[in-house]
Amino acid sequence: MTEYVYGRIPVLECIRAQKRTALRLMLQESGKHQSEFIAAAQDIPVEWASRKELDYLTHEGVHQGVVLEADPLPLLRLESWLEDAGNPQSLVVILDSIEDPHNFGAIARSAAACGASALMFAKDRSAPISPVSMKSAAGAMEYVDLIQVTNLPRALDMLKEHEYWVAGLDADGEKILWDADFTGKTGLVIGNEGKGLRSLVKKKCDYLVHIPISGPITSLNVSVSAAIAMMECVRQQHL
Amino acid sequence: MTEYVYGRIPVLECIRAQKRTALRLMLQESGKHQSEFIAAAQDIPVEWASRKELDYLTHEGVHQGVVLEADPLPLLRLESWLEDAGNPQSLVVILDSIEDPHNFGAIARSAAACGASALMFAKDRSAPISPVSMKSAAGAMEYVDLIQVTNLPRALDMLKEHEYWVAGLDADGEKILWDADFTGKTGLVIGNEGKGLRSLVKKKCDYLVHIPISGPITSLNVSVSAAIAMMECVRQQHL
Repeated sequence: MTEYVYGRIPVLECIRAQKRTALRLMLQESGKHQSEFIAAAQDIPVEWASRKELDYLTHEGVHQGVVLEADPLPLLRLESWLEDAGNPQSLVVILDSIEDPHNFGAIARSAAACGASALMFAKDRSAPISPVSMKSAAGAMEYVDLIQVTNLPRALDMLKEHEYWVAGLDADGEKILWDADFTGKTGLVIGNEGKGLRSLVKKKCDYLVHIPISGPITSLNVSVSAAIAMMECVRQQHL
Repeated sequence: MTEYVYGRIPVLECIRAQKRTALRLMLQESGKHQSEFIAAAQDIPVEWASRKELDYLTHEGVHQGVVLEADPLPLLRLESWLEDAGNPQSLVVILDSIEDPHNFGAIARSAAACGASALMFAKDRSAPISPVSMKSAAGAMEYVDLIQVTNLPRALDMLKEHEYWVAGLDADGEKILWDADFTGKTGLVIGNEGKGLRSLVKKKCDYLVHIPISGPITSLNVSVSAAIAMMECVRQQHL
């Protein structure tokens, strides 16, 4: 099954990254940025379509006049990914039951910008990878390795066997974020928007960290929390 | 002119914060959470409305069956705010031309969670404070002081006269975020989503800081960048 990537940045990054095969580029007649897309397309066949046709293909998504039909993003198995990954400062971002595709995409974008090696999630406990999450990711999904697992707690065990320290982000975590040590291989687990980490996942973490929040507002948006924690890993690995 | 605050969290926080007068609470017939709202309302008159009526009042917003008519949020003048503000570790978050009300609201939410004293913005160079930004702020606008100025560069001068160090967040900033000193009174300036800081605003900053980004994805969402920078202020003031 192929899929439809849409929007200016997601389409351009999909072509640029060359992570998957692009089959055809559909441009809106009298749309914007046409010469930019045609130049980017190179040997991808270009077709013209009406705005209505693109609206239909993208389920009324914000396509900005451009839709790319492409193979789905490759999803990796943790076992084989671990065999290939050699970076001693590797950061793996782990999503435990993120439901909103916008959050999934926003976290992917920040993960790529923080130089994370991979984004890991459970097959049946996550927002699907979709054109909506790709739009929020602003092209980032094309660059981060995507690891799909069937059992997240077991995957955390496997990371630990490979010398990862697994930290869970949790409002009641015993350590303040910046008191934890992220200088080695790190697995950073982000929980569900409303419910946080599942207790089974919490138990598998080496430690739980919290972001100190003051005042009457008691929570940050999950993609904001995730970005703050990832950037703390970058800060520590930078020093 | 009164305004309509909608959505469960914004309405509950508006009532709880008591920053402005609430005139009437409109609940959807057969809506959810009714007893919670009625309990929160106390002496605010409660009226019943159809879903269609609430859709109309909120311009099809995600009202979740509840709309509160209230006085607008009080906007403060910088001069009088500075006279009242005494916190030596005060953090003022300054928005230079943020256009998207979702970003405005998301930054307000993070600012409140980081314990910022105030959010400052220019009257004619900012997304308006609206029910949309309030929804994204998840109630946070009721708790942060909102300072509206007519001339942002002049306002930065005034902050500096009051012993604030003004840092601008800029992709080409000369310092890495965590090498800057945020332990004193800090003004943190966040630029436009696409164009960043205006050059006149940049010149007024004591220094410019950047968040180090790696890989092919060259930018973070502006509300994510803002939250990372604010939390760095919290980290330094915490040590």
